[in-house]
Amino acid sequence: MASNHMAEAERMARRAREAARKLALTDTATRNRALAEISARLMADCDKIVAASEQDVAGGRQAGLSAAMLDRLMLNRPRVEAMARSVDEIAALPDPVGEIIEAWDRPGGLHIERVRVPLGVVLIIYESRPNVTTDAAALCLKSANATILRGGKEAIRANGAVYRTIQSALASAGLPADSVQLVETTDHEFVNALLRQERWIDVVVPRGGEGLIRAVVDNSRIPVIKHYKGVCHVYVDEFADLGMAEEIVINAKCQRPGVCNAMETLLVHRAHAGEYLANLLSKLASLGVEIRGCERTCAVFSSAKPATKADWYAEYLDLILAVRVVDSIEEAMEHIAKYGSAHTDAIVTEDASRAEQFVRGVDSASVMVNASTRLSDGGVFGLGAEVGISTDKLHARGPMGIRDLTTYKYVVRGRGALRT
Amino acid sequence: MASNHMAEAERMARRAREAARKLALTDTATRNRALAEISARLMADCDKIVAASEQDVAGGRQAGLSAAMLDRLMLNRPRVEAMARSVDEIAALPDPVGEIIEAWDRPGGLHIERVRVPLGVVLIIYESRPNVTTDAAALCLKSANATILRGGKEAIRANGAVYRTIQSALASAGLPADSVQLVETTDHEFVNALLRQERWIDVVVPRGGEGLIRAVVDNSRIPVIKHYKGVCHVYVDEFADLGMAEEIVINAKCQRPGVCNAMETLLVHRAHAGEYLANLLSKLASLGVEIRGCERTCAVFSSAKPATKADWYAEYLDLILAVRVVDSIEEAMEHIAKYGSAHTDAIVTEDASRAEQFVRGVDSASVMVNASTRLSDGGVFGLGAEVGISTDKLHARGPMGIRDLTTYKYVVRGRGALRT
Repeated sequence: MASNHMAEAERMARRAREAARKLALTDTATRNRALAEISARLMADCDKIVAASEQDVAGGRQAGLSAAMLDRLMLNRPRVEAMARSVDEIAALPDPVGEIIEAWDRPGGLHIERVRVPLGVVLIIYESRPNVTTDAAALCLKSANATILRGGKEAIRANGAVYRTIQSALASAGLPADSVQLVETTDHEFVNALLRQERWIDVVVPRGGEGLIRAVVDNSRIPVIKHYKGVCHVYVDEFADLGMAEEIVINAKCQRPGVCNAMETLLVHRAHAGEYLANLLSKLASLGVEIRGCERTCAVFSSAKPATKADWYAEYLDLILAVRVVDSIEEAMEHIAKYGSAHTDAIVTEDASRAEQFVRGVDSASVMVNASTRLSDGGVFGLGAEVGISTDKLHARGPMGIRDLTTYKYVVRGRGALRT
Repeated sequence: MASNHMAEAERMARRAREAARKLALTDTATRNRALAEISARLMADCDKIVAASEQDVAGGRQAGLSAAMLDRLMLNRPRVEAMARSVDEIAALPDPVGEIIEAWDRPGGLHIERVRVPLGVVLIIYESRPNVTTDAAALCLKSANATILRGGKEAIRANGAVYRTIQSALASAGLPADSVQLVETTDHEFVNALLRQERWIDVVVPRGGEGLIRAVVDNSRIPVIKHYKGVCHVYVDEFADLGMAEEIVINAKCQRPGVCNAMETLLVHRAHAGEYLANLLSKLASLGVEIRGCERTCAVFSSAKPATKADWYAEYLDLILAVRVVDSIEEAMEHIAKYGSAHTDAIVTEDASRAEQFVRGVDSASVMVNASTRLSDGGVFGLGAEVGISTDKLHARGPMGIRDLTTYKYVVRGRGALRT
């Protein structure tokens, strides 16, 4: 790694740490004023931002990006308005910083508090959507964290324009310019140099596909909060309400197949592996879903393709569904433990003890009972704007709200208390 | 790395994962019964354990270990009794698993709970004290985690004897043998192979000196919860109660200088840099403390050695103290931010707004107001047996109790709830 990259990355990270120290001392009103300024200036600067995005889209078209990719890149006035609204919504969230999580007294006149504080410096690495630039900056500012943003190279002009808007808002609100920094080089080695600034950066949140996330984890010395993928299951239990099961299965697969909380594998108790399963799969097929089944599935639904082992591990993000008939709830849970991604898994059952068995035994971030996997979402859960989704066990698990951008400190007050 | 190490480490880690899945389903009473069995069998097997430890001590003496090291290694009957008592105390703690941390309802008939669950598989790497073997096993069992223990090679016979006692207790209580596993090879490469089992092991907790912890962090692909060192400060503010300050300073330095929450650097406001400081340092010197001071310190206390930059970073763990006179609370906070280890830092002041400024501005795991740094401790805080101390920002910070060996899952219950 070029040493000038390391030096420049360290300078950037140290500036962020300095800004974080100042942000930790700011009050809620000041940070909210900065967010209001960002929102207002996004609208004021809308033409400039849209023009910059047009250049990105033109560049992307020349580079042969797909229509879907070009659509993700593109900012127009309604999208900039939506970005401004999202900043307003983040401003309206309660300030997590300073919350006394717990407080208690101890012998010797000690009063102990666990107080919520910002993490410090957050590095966010994301792909093409430029709206992440304002979302991420706003989430971090609201929680008094300094942030370093590194967006996809395709959106570099739009991100730069949005960043300049954010800078003018910070200046107007009297917050340090280094509260939000944008990496404007597209050199991957510079990102890798940032990922080695564990002395100055507290956490990395990568947002994007599995390839991006693995690259970040492989190169980072800083803790990463992440999920690699969502191989989500719905298990239709022996004691399921079968009408409800059908609705949940169709919703979990078809309502938006391209996202991480869509169902990828359906597990069905053998009690329903006959006509019910055949009808259910026909309905899915009529909705455009390709079925890849185990032997017993293929036996009742002849248009199914035989599933291979790779299908049980697959995150299709598409209208494809792996289907397996199981002999018991235990077999369903074994399957989920072996092939799942610990993101979101659901059981459909009317039997309360089966539901409890599944809830306790399935080691996933979100476990749903008689509810669609698609409901595993920060907005649906009421956490406010979503920072991301974690399948890690440490710190934050499942949909991450703004509170997950904080940690705590112990504050201990005495009257000359000593250790004896 | 030898591939047989990787294969064997993976087998061990997978067995731990299987045991963890079973432990997650056990009730409090079963786990407490296992802990009671461990305690009772430690006493029953005491002679065997002491005999094994005598072999370790004899080996250590031959290898030329220091008297202090040999003392740490050594188990006799009172120490085995203390280990058994410690297991009983852990059994008596409230079970953290299953606690509903928060619960709320959301539109569409969703009931959402955040439920405390075990982390899963915990790898604990420690140095010579064999009592960690029972402490760590008991803390993990109580919180329904499977654990892999890797103790220091000097204590390998005592650890093996204790481990066989734990195994007989697990069998008697009907818990999986792989709930607790002991690494019985002394090959470092095998530990490094374990540190790559991120698929099966959830967290590593290293307990020992800075060298051990850095080696673990450098080799681990699994998240590590840790503190490297404790460079703890006491700042005697302009508005301090000077009698209280003297008591706190002497306690923080002298009560037990060899531990991570002992004070290493004293910061004194210039208002007290005359006779008061000279008297305080004389008292410390009379208690055997060597003073290494800044220029202004040396000017008022002639027996002080001049401090070098290395002294501000030093964790002496000894009767040595770095002393610096500062012009303001801001300069004290700057010093702590620059040289500190974010472990525990204290202010002595009667001025509430100064105390608040320090509490908000010092980014350490524990911030003490008018209290000794030595009070930063799980037992003192009332957390029960201490798992360790963390200076990380993620997951657990400060003294770690048994609750820090847990994570949470979201449990969502609906009546056929769908995403619309």
